[in-house]
Amino acid sequence: MADRTDTLSGDAAPEDAQKISDNGANGVSRRRLLGTAGAAGAVALVAGGAAGATGASVVRGKPDPLSSVGSANVAFHGTHQAGILQPSQAHGHLAAFDLAPKADAKAAAALLRRWSAAAADMMEGRTPQGDELGIALDAGPSSLTVTIGFGRTFFDRTGLAAKRPEALEPLPAFTADALDPKRSEGDLWVQIGADDGLVAFHALRLLQRLAADTARLRWQMNGFNRAPGATENPMTGRNLMGQMDGTNNPKETDANFGERIFVPDNRTGADAWMAGGSYVVVRRIRMLLDSWENLSVDRQEKIIGRRKSDGSPLSGGTETTRPDFNRMGSDGVLAIPGDAHIRVASPATNRGAAMLRRAFSYHDGFRDDGSPDAGLLFIAWQADPRKGFTPVQRKLDRGDGLSRFLKHEASGVFAVPGGCAPGEYVGQRLLEG
Amino acid sequence: MADRTDTLSGDAAPEDAQKISDNGANGVSRRRLLGTAGAAGAVALVAGGAAGATGASVVRGKPDPLSSVGSANVAFHGTHQAGILQPSQAHGHLAAFDLAPKADAKAAAALLRRWSAAAADMMEGRTPQGDELGIALDAGPSSLTVTIGFGRTFFDRTGLAAKRPEALEPLPAFTADALDPKRSEGDLWVQIGADDGLVAFHALRLLQRLAADTARLRWQMNGFNRAPGATENPMTGRNLMGQMDGTNNPKETDANFGERIFVPDNRTGADAWMAGGSYVVVRRIRMLLDSWENLSVDRQEKIIGRRKSDGSPLSGGTETTRPDFNRMGSDGVLAIPGDAHIRVASPATNRGAAMLRRAFSYHDGFRDDGSPDAGLLFIAWQADPRKGFTPVQRKLDRGDGLSRFLKHEASGVFAVPGGCAPGEYVGQRLLEG
Repeated sequence: MADRTDTLSGDAAPEDAQKISDNGANGVSRRRLLGTAGAAGAVALVAGGAAGATGASVVRGKPDPLSSVGSANVAFHGTHQAGILQPSQAHGHLAAFDLAPKADAKAAAALLRRWSAAAADMMEGRTPQGDELGIALDAGPSSLTVTIGFGRTFFDRTGLAAKRPEALEPLPAFTADALDPKRSEGDLWVQIGADDGLVAFHALRLLQRLAADTARLRWQMNGFNRAPGATENPMTGRNLMGQMDGTNNPKETDANFGERIFVPDNRTGADAWMAGGSYVVVRRIRMLLDSWENLSVDRQEKIIGRRKSDGSPLSGGTETTRPDFNRMGSDGVLAIPGDAHIRVASPATNRGAAMLRRAFSYHDGFRDDGSPDAGLLFIAWQADPRKGFTPVQRKLDRGDGLSRFLKHEASGVFAVPGGCAPGEYVGQRLLEG
Repeated sequence: MADRTDTLSGDAAPEDAQKISDNGANGVSRRRLLGTAGAAGAVALVAGGAAGATGASVVRGKPDPLSSVGSANVAFHGTHQAGILQPSQAHGHLAAFDLAPKADAKAAAALLRRWSAAAADMMEGRTPQGDELGIALDAGPSSLTVTIGFGRTFFDRTGLAAKRPEALEPLPAFTADALDPKRSEGDLWVQIGADDGLVAFHALRLLQRLAADTARLRWQMNGFNRAPGATENPMTGRNLMGQMDGTNNPKETDANFGERIFVPDNRTGADAWMAGGSYVVVRRIRMLLDSWENLSVDRQEKIIGRRKSDGSPLSGGTETTRPDFNRMGSDGVLAIPGDAHIRVASPATNRGAAMLRRAFSYHDGFRDDGSPDAGLLFIAWQADPRKGFTPVQRKLDRGDGLSRFLKHEASGVFAVPGGCAPGEYVGQRLLEG
């Protein structure tokens, strides 16, 4: 374990960085043992001498060593940014920043360079140069990911309007929207996730400090998910309604997964810099839990279209069985009702529109009337929101039985460029291309 | 793993409860491998067939089984309530409730009976009868603890003023106080902790629903700590200032530990019902992180009296070395400055006053000025706050260099009765004694 201590001592000089991130041999990391790992070149999850270290060191009477949680790390550099294909972590922070009035494209580029360097260090278990916060000292990277995107307003502010992608057009208004503009949109967007709360907070705080005079926090939200190891079924989480959420998420093995989620390499227009990138739609969706919980489970299941206990569709089978939307129940009505959430949201009824959802639950206490200020930080990834989120949400807005129990309180769309190579920074192809 | 499924199916009939909680043979639980476990009869942490199950089932390419996080459970019944001697979990909720105007002692007793039954079920991995929330379905208990206490106002409201302990007198005012009465005190207090965020939220939400018309939420706060396995040094956490916090916490092996923290069995007066109980002081302490982080580490260390990196006192040694408050540095001044936090707070300078601190960090986003709304949910346990918290805080208030960086925003003192036996409920000796 001595090698781990080295990477966490805060003394790693810049010239050591490449050596440390050139991983595998260090044995400091452990492959994250989850199904979505190892996607076609998408994100390199570094593999260390895992099995031995983990299996052997679980000893009665001693605390678990830095193992499944702490030592898991995700590489910063790659084709896509980290934090899209990895499973959602136990702790998440979303933040939007607005550029300061005097900040220009050059200042923004310098900020993105600082952010990228710090993110690469933190994600690989090193203390960034000059970082004396100490909040994450003696913890491992804990699957930390940092993901950075650009809002529509960024392009005007920096004189880069000619490079603003058409796909970044504003979302239409929806009936269920009660959006707070102060908690919506923004010039820059950051998504932070980690399986340790202090590691996540440290990353948020450091990025805020690195923004310094260049950008100021516009809004910030905190979320959470099931902790690794809390359940035997980590692939599908539950939301605060108690429903499994994400069962029908597209999988990397699906046909056309790549082109539905990521911008292809062959763009030549204004958005050529977005190759390997993705567009994210972020919605703060409050759940009206008092009303929801007063329904019977039977009623809840008809609204969702799945069994609450195990996520199986009401047409039968198990969680992974494809729903049969034509199946009639013994009572002669549709097993999955016409306004059931999974029917209205299904790609089959949306011309194949698909997005990769990667949500966090949120709970910000209670409102004055005693109802929970809680729900979902909905985060959906797609190659083009006009073909992903927007048509699906239009249908949900009209026909989804679940929408009566949801309130969209904040919204943002951001262009999240592809990942960068060592020595580059996120957004370099936009700012220097 | 079949036996685990049984306990989580939600079908456990009440008559099965004793069988399931009569643990050990079921193999559903795993001893929490932490130093404070196994205290003299204090809290029974149930031991299952741990080493084998954990060691053998960590297999490359498969997710970790429900192991160190999910299956760890703490017994509800015992001499003391759970949630005092156990290490702080990764997620915490604090909540205070006020009795409804028409609720009397009988209604309060019924509520405490409902809460106790639900807490016992959830802590032992069963779905409470009638609980259809589903938020924690298919997760293990994840070291859930539920702790219940009474505020000063409870006794007037229920006609039990004659049983109000003298130790429950209001705290004096302190200079660093900027208390919000709406987020302070309350008739009833609940502390929830779990290593999984959904398990913790489920418990909070269920207790709120069980309060129904009897009691209404007065205030509620969310906190977090390092996740199990995120660090090799789980015994001492770090706070959001990046400092190790809790190094000098009293240990169960200390002389007089029991009598300093818990009310003895031999009381005969108004507080005889508090035998085995403890008094908790809860303070929401905001950290002025912008100011703190602008200090050099050297300056921060002089304010605390310990090295930031490893928690060792400035008088030398390692984290566990006893500070030498008389030691002079080579520059001829005290190695641990006169106003250093650990000097002013030390039991040695407070006539041995000791409290068992068990804090959560909190982060509720950012204030309008961009500064973090973040700090510490300070939770301190003692046999008598007049001999524990109050004299120490009086000294800190006057002489602690750290107090310039802290703001106490909310406060509460609660009488937390001893634990109960199966068939009893928390507070029964107060309400029926």
